Amino acid sequence: MQWQLAERAQRMNPSVIREILKVTEKPGIISFAGGLPSPKTFPVQAFAAACATVLKNDGPAALQYAASEGFPALREWVANSLPWKVDPAQVLITTGSQQALDLIAKILIDKGSRVLVETPTYLGALQAFTPMEPEFVSIASDAEGIDVGDLRAKAQGARFLYVLPNFQNPTGNTMSEARRAALSAAAAQLGLPIVEDNPYGDLWFDAPPPAPLAARNPEGCIYMGSFSKTLAPGLRLGFLVAPKALYPKLLQAKQAADLHTPSFNQRMVAEVLKDGFIDRHVPTIRALYKAQRDAMLAALEKNLAGTGVQWNMPDGGMFLWVKLPVGMDAAALLPKAVERNVAFVPGAAFYSDSEQKNTLRLSFVTASSEQINEGVAALAQVIKANLP
Amino acid sequence: MQWQLAERAQRMNPSVIREILKVTEKPGIISFAGGLPSPKTFPVQAFAAACATVLKNDGPAALQYAASEGFPALREWVANSLPWKVDPAQVLITTGSQQALDLIAKILIDKGSRVLVETPTYLGALQAFTPMEPEFVSIASDAEGIDVGDLRAKAQGARFLYVLPNFQNPTGNTMSEARRAALSAAAAQLGLPIVEDNPYGDLWFDAPPPAPLAARNPEGCIYMGSFSKTLAPGLRLGFLVAPKALYPKLLQAKQAADLHTPSFNQRMVAEVLKDGFIDRHVPTIRALYKAQRDAMLAALEKNLAGTGVQWNMPDGGMFLWVKLPVGMDAAALLPKAVERNVAFVPGAAFYSDSEQKNTLRLSFVTASSEQINEGVAALAQVIKANLP
Repeated sequence: MQWQLAERAQRMNPSVIREILKVTEKPGIISFAGGLPSPKTFPVQAFAAACATVLKNDGPAALQYAASEGFPALREWVANSLPWKVDPAQVLITTGSQQALDLIAKILIDKGSRVLVETPTYLGALQAFTPMEPEFVSIASDAEGIDVGDLRAKAQGARFLYVLPNFQNPTGNTMSEARRAALSAAAAQLGLPIVEDNPYGDLWFDAPPPAPLAARNPEGCIYMGSFSKTLAPGLRLGFLVAPKALYPKLLQAKQAADLHTPSFNQRMVAEVLKDGFIDRHVPTIRALYKAQRDAMLAALEKNLAGTGVQWNMPDGGMFLWVKLPVGMDAAALLPKAVERNVAFVPGAAFYSDSEQKNTLRLSFVTASSEQINEGVAALAQVIKANLP
Repeated sequence: MQWQLAERAQRMNPSVIREILKVTEKPGIISFAGGLPSPKTFPVQAFAAACATVLKNDGPAALQYAASEGFPALREWVANSLPWKVDPAQVLITTGSQQALDLIAKILIDKGSRVLVETPTYLGALQAFTPMEPEFVSIASDAEGIDVGDLRAKAQGARFLYVLPNFQNPTGNTMSEARRAALSAAAAQLGLPIVEDNPYGDLWFDAPPPAPLAARNPEGCIYMGSFSKTLAPGLRLGFLVAPKALYPKLLQAKQAADLHTPSFNQRMVAEVLKDGFIDRHVPTIRALYKAQRDAMLAALEKNLAGTGVQWNMPDGGMFLWVKLPVGMDAAALLPKAVERNVAFVPGAAFYSDSEQKNTLRLSFVTASSEQINEGVAALAQVIKANLP
């Protein structure tokens, strides 16, 4: 039988992270690898009550086909939750924010289109964009965000810049106010559209991050958000906010992709969100993750101070970024770490080009503080045994 | 701001059906337009019980990220439900079977690839395939299915044939046993892959349809199924079964598209499906839809006999196909019908080329038998007032 693959299929690869997650599913392993929210934060009782209410009051509608745009009450909630003026008509509910990346790729990327990304950037975005065959252009980035000078040098003809300003995946870095102002000004001047991905923004520890880029130039940005980190990922609920001129094409792509996001899930979450639930719930997640970040920082300091290994201190989110001494390869360490029952993600996969093999990503949200102490100690032993 | 659309986005268009559904949402309208299952058939109580059970027993897992392949128990159920030997490892759970079309398009269609379709064919498939920019080739079809001679004449270099053998959307026609045998033999000889879409196959009225094409040549077919018609569409649960060699690429496309189908929905449906629920439930749907088909046939006979208007008698599914006298344009009738509080879908949208404007699709599942009587009478008046 002659199954001939499309050219784009040749470029598609298995997710490195998902392959690693399989390796690390062995019982007893302490995993800093996956970006899995702590199940302790899932409001199971609130979901159970919402399921019962939705099926009792609106069962037939919740189980029927529905509008591709999304459930009106949820679109309104999203519009009202954002810190700039958003019309609910600009909100498209997506099947996780991963789907928003897929829809954006379909309507904005031609084969060979230049797509600008941070260095490093979210692996799932590279995977979502890749089937549309872009040319990725890696923009130099530091702890404050995108290097605007490098952006200006490389922006010519680019379709958009993809950026994750808050508690970035993978680095945990947050773009500073000054950098956001400079980036917004440069993008407006260059006519460069921005795709702003903000799944972690609500997970700040001491103070909220600066205002989104979309708030500064709504016509120049597509903004993406998610309920995966504040409620639960297993419902697959995300959203995008698009300029009105772009919205119809994104909606057509959505219709073709899966008709609509499950109506039952949308109504269930809209029910949970009533009466300010999120304002009571999210602070409990922040407190938990902050304590676990602190546990990880303390364990790193205790076990790796003075070895030349470097790490950052994220102000929120789920991830922390480690740089091993130059010459070390984090991927080569992984099997040795897994032998010691601890796992992480080597950083190389997050680079669209010129990967830095001496980097790795640690999640501090899935494992408990006790597990973090134990896991970092084991990881540190592996690192120290392999220092150059 | 310079939002430059991808070339493929220029080809994308709003769904004619979704636009019509908006028009027909006015209160009091009797709609034969949408393919909306009767909400009477949704097992609301079973879903409520399953939600409670899943959240009580497996809440954290049901709300967490999960494998892209799908929930193991659901994949096993699907494999066991099919009338040929299927390994659960070949089953990919999708966000509605619409998503399966999107994934298939991504891995099999290059710009300009020849994709063979029935005449007429499912509009949602045309929409899912279109972003990958195929050249559609319309194969002559009659009440028994694809014209195999025409297929042989046009198959050269085609990527695949997309076919809906059971109670087809839009026509309601079922491919005969003889035609399936001839098609399978021809496809095997030509090395032509088949994408077989079977969302309606369980909705037979008097006898099950002939065996699927995939059962005859599993290595040459991707098979698609859905829970939208047997349980409820609002959960967005479908599946595909692929040859093992193709599965990895489909899985990678799935990961990139939305990571995975909601784990909560998969576990909830797996819970509902325990203990043979579907075997008790589906016969009630068959009985309801058969009675409503009969009501529609009787109403058509009563109101339109002798006018030159023709229709078929579907053996299952949701749709019936009407041919108006040549020269009439169903699209021009629609506004007049909506004025009389009845709606349908003009047939032209279902043709990938050389549309037949004198056709229309009637759904007999959404409206009750009483509404069918009333709605067909009103529609017949509009038709008769506009006969050539």
